Amino acid sequence: MTEQKATNVHWHEGDITREHRGKLLGHKGATLWFTGLSGSGKSTIAVELEGVLYEMGVLSYRLDGDNVRMGINKNLGFSAEDRVENIRRIGEISKLYVDTGVILLSSFISPYRADREQVRKLHEEAGMDFIEVFVDCSLGAAESRDPKGLYKKARAGEIKNFTGIDDPYEAPNNPEIHLNSDKQSLAEEVALILNVLRERGIIDK
Amino acid sequence: MTEQKATNVHWHEGDITREHRGKLLGHKGATLWFTGLSGSGKSTIAVELEGVLYEMGVLSYRLDGDNVRMGINKNLGFSAEDRVENIRRIGEISKLYVDTGVILLSSFISPYRADREQVRKLHEEAGMDFIEVFVDCSLGAAESRDPKGLYKKARAGEIKNFTGIDDPYEAPNNPEIHLNSDKQSLAEEVALILNVLRERGIIDK
Repeated sequence: MTEQKATNVHWHEGDITREHRGKLLGHKGATLWFTGLSGSGKSTIAVELEGVLYEMGVLSYRLDGDNVRMGINKNLGFSAEDRVENIRRIGEISKLYVDTGVILLSSFISPYRADREQVRKLHEEAGMDFIEVFVDCSLGAAESRDPKGLYKKARAGEIKNFTGIDDPYEAPNNPEIHLNSDKQSLAEEVALILNVLRERGIIDK
Repeated sequence: MTEQKATNVHWHEGDITREHRGKLLGHKGATLWFTGLSGSGKSTIAVELEGVLYEMGVLSYRLDGDNVRMGINKNLGFSAEDRVENIRRIGEISKLYVDTGVILLSSFISPYRADREQVRKLHEEAGMDFIEVFVDCSLGAAESRDPKGLYKKARAGEIKNFTGIDDPYEAPNNPEIHLNSDKQSLAEEVALILNVLRERGIIDK
């Protein structure tokens, strides 16, 4: 009886690859790496994009402080060394997701160019799409939004080494996508990103 | 013109959840945690299951030494502390995958009960399925297979703290699935796992 079942559950075409998973999902995987100041709109854009992709039948997943800092990176603090390791781990997880076929939306300030370039290199060496999305926004605009009240605390000296206040933000030199969240609407930003996904053949919808 | 596009790319129903992704994929996410001696057949079973799930249109992904030890965990060695951290990180990544809606196949010796129980707890606290698959196999059978020549090296003292030789393997007390790879065929093993996935409502095929 078990033998009879067995004939239905045999796979003999070798290991399942990235290509198989892409075929199953109907699109390729890619990392969209949102970088920008706190309050620049990274998460807002990622959340909107996630919804739009869902309506298109495209599987995406967001990594952000909520599911990373409380999970895999909960043993990391904010020292220089730990910040590097934080981004390194997020980059490695992103790679696994691209291999899975998912469009991974990584939404972290990630202020240092060298760290982002390291993640880019990891992807490119593996033949994976890494799309840096610079969510550009003036410090004034980000600080006036201050959705989490963090700038206020940083100005009051309650938070040290805060990006934009007493720690630098190194803007990307040559990002694949450069958004200006002071000036563009959310819908415009999402449309720009979708166009790049189409141009690269990641989605065909 | 940009405005016109915009009307097609608006999402206004709140955050995308695990349930949305499950609907998109047509199945739920879950972690299948294969544990057992080196050479017990964990990876062989996971590879076969992956192929069968693919044929069923179910998205799964395998984590194993190849994509974890060379990637996210490349800064970990084999000290007691690093082994714990190794499994902790794999557990956290597994959780992200379950949240994504993927059936995650984790294939590591993971010899210590406490580490596996920690991963189980992480999943259960988040309302996620954690299915421990004990790939039971006598040391004699595993050692006679010795697919990577590791037992030979361990017996020669070239590898220290090798599970089953000079480091213990703590068998699960109450695994969801107990396979006997000495006695069962690969097809039987896969059929048993599929049945559990169906019983739990993770797949409905």
